Amino acid sequence: MHYGFFDDQNREYVIERPDTPVSWTNYLGVKDLCTVISNNAGGYSFYRQAQHHRITRFRPNAVPLDRPGHYVYLRDDETGEYWSLSWQPVGLNLTKATYQCRHGLSYSKFSSKYQGITGEQLLFIPVDDEVELWDVKIKNNTDRPRRLSVFSYLEFSFHHVDIDNQNFQMSLYASGSSYQDGIIEYDFFYEPWTYHYFTANFEPDSYDGLRDRFLGPYRTESNPIAVEKGHCSNSSELGGNHCAALHKALTLAPGEEKRLIFMLGVGDRANGGKMRAKYSDFANVDHAFAELKAYWHDKLENLQCRTPHGGFNSMINTWNPYQAETCVVWSRFASFIEVGGRSGLGYRDTAQDIMSVPHTNPAKVRQRIVELLRAQVSSGYGLHLFEPEHFDPNRPPAPKFQSPTVVPEPETGSLVHGLEDTCSDDHLWLVPSVCQYVKETGDHAFFAERIPFADEGEATVYEHLKKALDFSAEQVGPNGICKGLRADWNDCLNLGGGESAMVTFLHYWALR
Amino acid sequence: MHYGFFDDQNREYVIERPDTPVSWTNYLGVKDLCTVISNNAGGYSFYRQAQHHRITRFRPNAVPLDRPGHYVYLRDDETGEYWSLSWQPVGLNLTKATYQCRHGLSYSKFSSKYQGITGEQLLFIPVDDEVELWDVKIKNNTDRPRRLSVFSYLEFSFHHVDIDNQNFQMSLYASGSSYQDGIIEYDFFYEPWTYHYFTANFEPDSYDGLRDRFLGPYRTESNPIAVEKGHCSNSSELGGNHCAALHKALTLAPGEEKRLIFMLGVGDRANGGKMRAKYSDFANVDHAFAELKAYWHDKLENLQCRTPHGGFNSMINTWNPYQAETCVVWSRFASFIEVGGRSGLGYRDTAQDIMSVPHTNPAKVRQRIVELLRAQVSSGYGLHLFEPEHFDPNRPPAPKFQSPTVVPEPETGSLVHGLEDTCSDDHLWLVPSVCQYVKETGDHAFFAERIPFADEGEATVYEHLKKALDFSAEQVGPNGICKGLRADWNDCLNLGGGESAMVTFLHYWALR
Repeated sequence: MHYGFFDDQNREYVIERPDTPVSWTNYLGVKDLCTVISNNAGGYSFYRQAQHHRITRFRPNAVPLDRPGHYVYLRDDETGEYWSLSWQPVGLNLTKATYQCRHGLSYSKFSSKYQGITGEQLLFIPVDDEVELWDVKIKNNTDRPRRLSVFSYLEFSFHHVDIDNQNFQMSLYASGSSYQDGIIEYDFFYEPWTYHYFTANFEPDSYDGLRDRFLGPYRTESNPIAVEKGHCSNSSELGGNHCAALHKALTLAPGEEKRLIFMLGVGDRANGGKMRAKYSDFANVDHAFAELKAYWHDKLENLQCRTPHGGFNSMINTWNPYQAETCVVWSRFASFIEVGGRSGLGYRDTAQDIMSVPHTNPAKVRQRIVELLRAQVSSGYGLHLFEPEHFDPNRPPAPKFQSPTVVPEPETGSLVHGLEDTCSDDHLWLVPSVCQYVKETGDHAFFAERIPFADEGEATVYEHLKKALDFSAEQVGPNGICKGLRADWNDCLNLGGGESAMVTFLHYWALR
Repeated sequence: MHYGFFDDQNREYVIERPDTPVSWTNYLGVKDLCTVISNNAGGYSFYRQAQHHRITRFRPNAVPLDRPGHYVYLRDDETGEYWSLSWQPVGLNLTKATYQCRHGLSYSKFSSKYQGITGEQLLFIPVDDEVELWDVKIKNNTDRPRRLSVFSYLEFSFHHVDIDNQNFQMSLYASGSSYQDGIIEYDFFYEPWTYHYFTANFEPDSYDGLRDRFLGPYRTESNPIAVEKGHCSNSSELGGNHCAALHKALTLAPGEEKRLIFMLGVGDRANGGKMRAKYSDFANVDHAFAELKAYWHDKLENLQCRTPHGGFNSMINTWNPYQAETCVVWSRFASFIEVGGRSGLGYRDTAQDIMSVPHTNPAKVRQRIVELLRAQVSSGYGLHLFEPEHFDPNRPPAPKFQSPTVVPEPETGSLVHGLEDTCSDDHLWLVPSVCQYVKETGDHAFFAERIPFADEGEATVYEHLKKALDFSAEQVGPNGICKGLRADWNDCLNLGGGESAMVTFLHYWALR
C-alpha cells in the first residue's frame, strides 16, 4: 500500500493518502515552544515540557484516533457543506476530495481540494518567537464567486496533564477564556502567571472560547455545530473546557486567493497583541519561514553525502539528523506514545541521541552532557529517568503551584534511585558521547570541568567517566562479565539478575 | 425542558429524552464489583477500586461525551441499517427512533424502538456473584420475519488508570485477549493473577477481542466497521487495545421475542465458564434480579414516610438513602468526575455519608468508622484523603506489581500529612458520626474498643473522639475561635490561615 514518499528536493515527506494505519507525526519548533502534529493535523503543543506546560490538549490512544488537533474548517456558505484542510477531523470520503500532507523540517503543510476550492494550512513556529503560525490560503478555482466561512479550532489543556486526566470537580474550574481585541485569552487560575492566546490577522465575524459550545452536545470535531450553522456563538467563561475558534466569512471572486494568518502563543493578551501586529504583515510571516528554512539548511550543510543509494542519502542528509536533533531538543517524552505522566531525560536515550548531532548542535550537546553528568551518582551509575532541572545548581526557584488537591510529593532525596532500579548500561554511554563531542569540537578543556554528582560531591568530567567505567568493572557476575542489574539496553525486559554480554561489550568498547 | 421523571412505584428515574445536557449516572453493584453507567450506557467497571482495578475503560471529560460504555448494537441484516439499544453511541435522529433509560436501584435498563423492533438491555450485578449481566430482549413487532444481528461492545482498561493514560510503549504491550469456548478472556500480563472475561449464553457467530478491528480505522463507537459489515473479524492478540464484541445473527418470526444474556466478570476463562453455565439459565438471571430487588427493599423498609409532599417522599424513601449507601460503599472517588488518579476515602465525606445509613447498613458504617479512626493522627486531626488499606493492621501483603517504569513511590511515613495539609473540620465529624451509629445500633461497647492511630499508639474510640475535640480546642486563633487551617468545609477555598466560624459551630455542636 502506498501512502507517501520522500521529496528530497524539498526535504519533505509527502503523504498523499491520509488514512494511514497509524499516525505519522512531525515536530514543530526548535527552541521552547513545540507542537507534535500528525498527518491529519491531530496533536498538541507544549512549552518546554509536555507534562507541566501543556498548551493544547490531546487524547492519546483514544477513539477517535488522534484528537483533537490544530484544525481549519471550510464551509460553503451557499450549500452548508463543510470540510477541513486536513483530511481529519471532518474526514470526507476520499473518492470525493483530495488531501496532501507535507511534513517538512519543523513545519507541516496540509492541503485539500474540494468543490473547486483549494485550501492550504502551513504550520510552523518561528525560530525566535514563541508563537505557532497557521499560514492559510484559500483559492476559488471555479468561474463563479464563492461565499465561504473559515473556522479555526483547537482545544486548550488545563496546562498539566494530570489536571486534564482527573479530579474534574477541580479541573473544570481551573481556567477561563475571554475574548477581546480579536484575541482569545486562556487563563490558568492556579498559576497566576500562566496565559495562552489565539488570534488572527483579521477581525473575526464570530468566535468561541468554550469547547462544548463550538462542538455542540453529543458531537465531535467531525461535525461541530458552529461549522454546521456557519457561525460561532461568541462564548467564553471562567470555567469549563476551552477552545480557540475564530470565524471569518469570505467571498472569493473566480480565481481569487485569500490568505489568513492564525497565531497560537504563550503569554497573555498583551503578548498576543504584539504578535498579532507583527504577523499580520505577510512579509514577516514569509521572513520567519525563510529563517526557519535557513536554520535547518545551515545545520544540515555540515554533513551531506551523495551515494548511489537514494534512500541512504535521504536518511543521512536529512532525516537522521532531523530525528536526532528532535530527540536532543525535546527528549523522548513528547510524542503520541509519551504524552505526559513521564517526563525529563532518559539516561541512555539522551547519551545516544547526542552522539548523532555534535556537528549540528554542539551547544545543545554540551548542555545535555552536563545534565547527564549531574544525574550521575557518585558511585558511577546514572539515574535512569530524571528531570534535569532537579539537579541544576543554578536552577531558579520555581513559583509554587498551589493545587487544592493534597498529593504527597516525593522528597528530593527519593529522586536518587538505588541499585535495584539501575540499568547496567546507562552510564557507559557517557564515554562515547563525551568523546564524540570533544572529537567534533576540539573542546579538550571540557574534561577538566568540575560537575556535581546527583547525590554528593563533585568531580571533573574525566573523573565522572572513570567512575562510570569503575562501576561496571565492579558490577561483575559469577561468569566474569557485567551483571544485567535491573535491565540492559533491552529495558522492556526486566532482567532482575543475571549477566549481560551486551553491557560487557559496551564496557569493553568504552574502556578502549 | 423535560428529560425524565421519578417513577416512585418502581423506584426508578426514567429518562425519556436521552440528549441530556450532562451525563446522568447510576451505580451497579453492591459489594466488590461496580459499574458507573450513564443514561446513554457510557461508563466503566472496576473491582473494589477505580484506579488500580479498573475493568473497562472510560475517557472522561472527552469528545465524544462519555465513551466508551457497555453497548449493544442491533443491525437489520436486510437493509444494513444499525442502531444501539441506548441512544448513544449510534445516536439516531430522535425524531426517527425512541429511547428510554430507567435508572433503578443498582440496575439500569435501556430500551429502544426502531423499525418495528423493540430492544431492551437490563444491566445489573447479582448480589453474590462478581459478574455484570446484560439481560437483552429483542422483539419483532412487525408482521414479517426479520433477520437481525446483535453485537455487544465494551473496551477493556489496562487495569490501572495510569497505564491507560501514559507510556504507551509499555501500555500497548501490557495485556492480551484470546477467544475460546465462547469466552473472550482479557489477560493483564504485569499481574499474573489478573484476568477478566466476557461471554454470553449463546455460541457467537463472530467475535472481536481487538478494539481497533471492531471499530475500524478512523471510526468510533458510533459507526463500527464490524456492525456496518454485519460480522466481526474474529480478532485477538497479545498486545494492543482490547474489547469484548460478541455477535449473534437472529431471525425473529412476527411477534417473536428472543432473550440473550451477556456476562462481564472478574477472573479467568474458567470462572467465565462457571458463570456462563449458571446464567445461561434464565431462571437464575431472574432469581438474581429478584434478590437484588429484595436487597434494596429490605434496606429501605427500615424507614419509610408518607407526607403530603411527593418529592420529599421520593427523596427520603428512596433516593437519599440510595445515594448515601452508594457513597459509603464506593467512596466519592468513582464517578465521571473522579475517574482514578485520586482514590481512597475523603475524611469529611465519609464521616458525613455514614450518618445517613446506620439504620440501613450498620456493618458498613462500623467498618468505615474504624477506618476513619485508624487514619486519625494521635494529635487529633484526620488525614484528609487516605487509602484505608494502608492503615489496616490486618492487611494482607499485596502481591508486588512489577512495573517496567521507574516511578519513585512515596514512603509510608509520608502518607501522614502534617498540619499544613490539615483541614480544620475533618476530625470533628467523627463525633456526630460515632454517636449516630451508637444511638441507632445500641452498640455502646464500641466506645471502649481500642484502635490504633495513623502515626503511633492506640486508644479507645472514646479517647479518639476526645483527641479530636482537644485538637480543635487547641487550634484557636486570635479571636478565640477555631483556626481555619488549610481549609474548612468549603475546601475548594484554600484558607491558608484565618479562622472559621463554621468549624467553631461544629466544634461546639460536637462538644455538646
